Amino acid sequence: MPQIVCLDMEGVLTPEIWIAFSEATGIPELRRTTRDEPDYDKLMRMRIGVLAEHGLGLADIQRVIGQMRPLPGAKQFLDQLRADQQVIILSDTFYQFAAPLTRQLGQPTLFCNELVIGEEGRVVDYRLRVRDGKRRAVLALKDLGFRVLAAGDSYNDTTMLREADRGVLFRCPDSVSREFPQFRRTETYAELSSALLEPQ
Amino acid sequence: MPQIVCLDMEGVLTPEIWIAFSEATGIPELRRTTRDEPDYDKLMRMRIGVLAEHGLGLADIQRVIGQMRPLPGAKQFLDQLRADQQVIILSDTFYQFAAPLTRQLGQPTLFCNELVIGEEGRVVDYRLRVRDGKRRAVLALKDLGFRVLAAGDSYNDTTMLREADRGVLFRCPDSVSREFPQFRRTETYAELSSALLEPQ
Repeated sequence: MPQIVCLDMEGVLTPEIWIAFSEATGIPELRRTTRDEPDYDKLMRMRIGVLAEHGLGLADIQRVIGQMRPLPGAKQFLDQLRADQQVIILSDTFYQFAAPLTRQLGQPTLFCNELVIGEEGRVVDYRLRVRDGKRRAVLALKDLGFRVLAAGDSYNDTTMLREADRGVLFRCPDSVSREFPQFRRTETYAELSSALLEPQ
Repeated sequence: MPQIVCLDMEGVLTPEIWIAFSEATGIPELRRTTRDEPDYDKLMRMRIGVLAEHGLGLADIQRVIGQMRPLPGAKQFLDQLRADQQVIILSDTFYQFAAPLTRQLGQPTLFCNELVIGEEGRVVDYRLRVRDGKRRAVLALKDLGFRVLAAGDSYNDTTMLREADRGVLFRCPDSVSREFPQFRRTETYAELSSALLEPQ
């Protein structure tokens, strides 16, 4: 059966974008995540407000993100994987944020979301493609006749890992690993490759 | 709305593999296509039989296909497209055939089918992932919240083009263009890019 590998992006291939962005710009509010503010919409409204306050438009954001690098070894891992596997990156981030990073990763196919950009390149809104997009993508790929292997690093990946034929955790918090012992926990790209691809 | 471009492979990015393979090996029976033998399963059984007769295993086939090149300009077209679009190649070919060509195209994500390889690398069978795979993939992507733009060159692409939000024909036979006048007909990669991406 043909198989396809679905990878989370932030934490697996790249740093967490908002956190790195907060550090690069020195704006501490942008470090807040869904762990601090569980209401995602409220969190995004706050972020959009903060960007406006600091006069940061899309071009500024992309310039900052353009300085970021994929995680050490990520490009090589992905190149080797793509040499004989189909790969799709499933992420909750936005295309406009991801672009400077996916370019450095060799333009893998990415399913994520979109920021709405207004006059003078200001971020005015965001749009989620669908709810529970990662899990829905895995379901759709299975429905198209693929065996799906998936890897992610955090809570928001676990529905995708559960839906996949094989789910693997990569550099996850201990709490996630404890709660989901059914997913093999890996720390290096070599371990991740083996966990994804070796026959069970 | 985020969009995704679905491209047929043979005829759009690469030569027709069986035809090129027939020429490279000098085996005329392998030139037969669904136009000569409308029963796809019968056609594939014939092909697998002919490969066996000539003692051609997977390694030989991949060596021959490894000599093939994408169509002139195809890699550049695809690189430019992937610089700011998500792209998936939808093909009726087999991963084992496509691999030497997709490698030269920068490893775009490919949805296609699988040959079943037996002892000593012999081709013993084939497996279709799903029926009507191209159209089903477009439907699934729309269901995941994507606007889908699609391009292909022949009859077997028209269900995919119809399902897409925008369908474009590339270097198609006159008969296909006459029967499907709703799809813009293009001949060069520049025309294809414009037809796919320009606002209507």
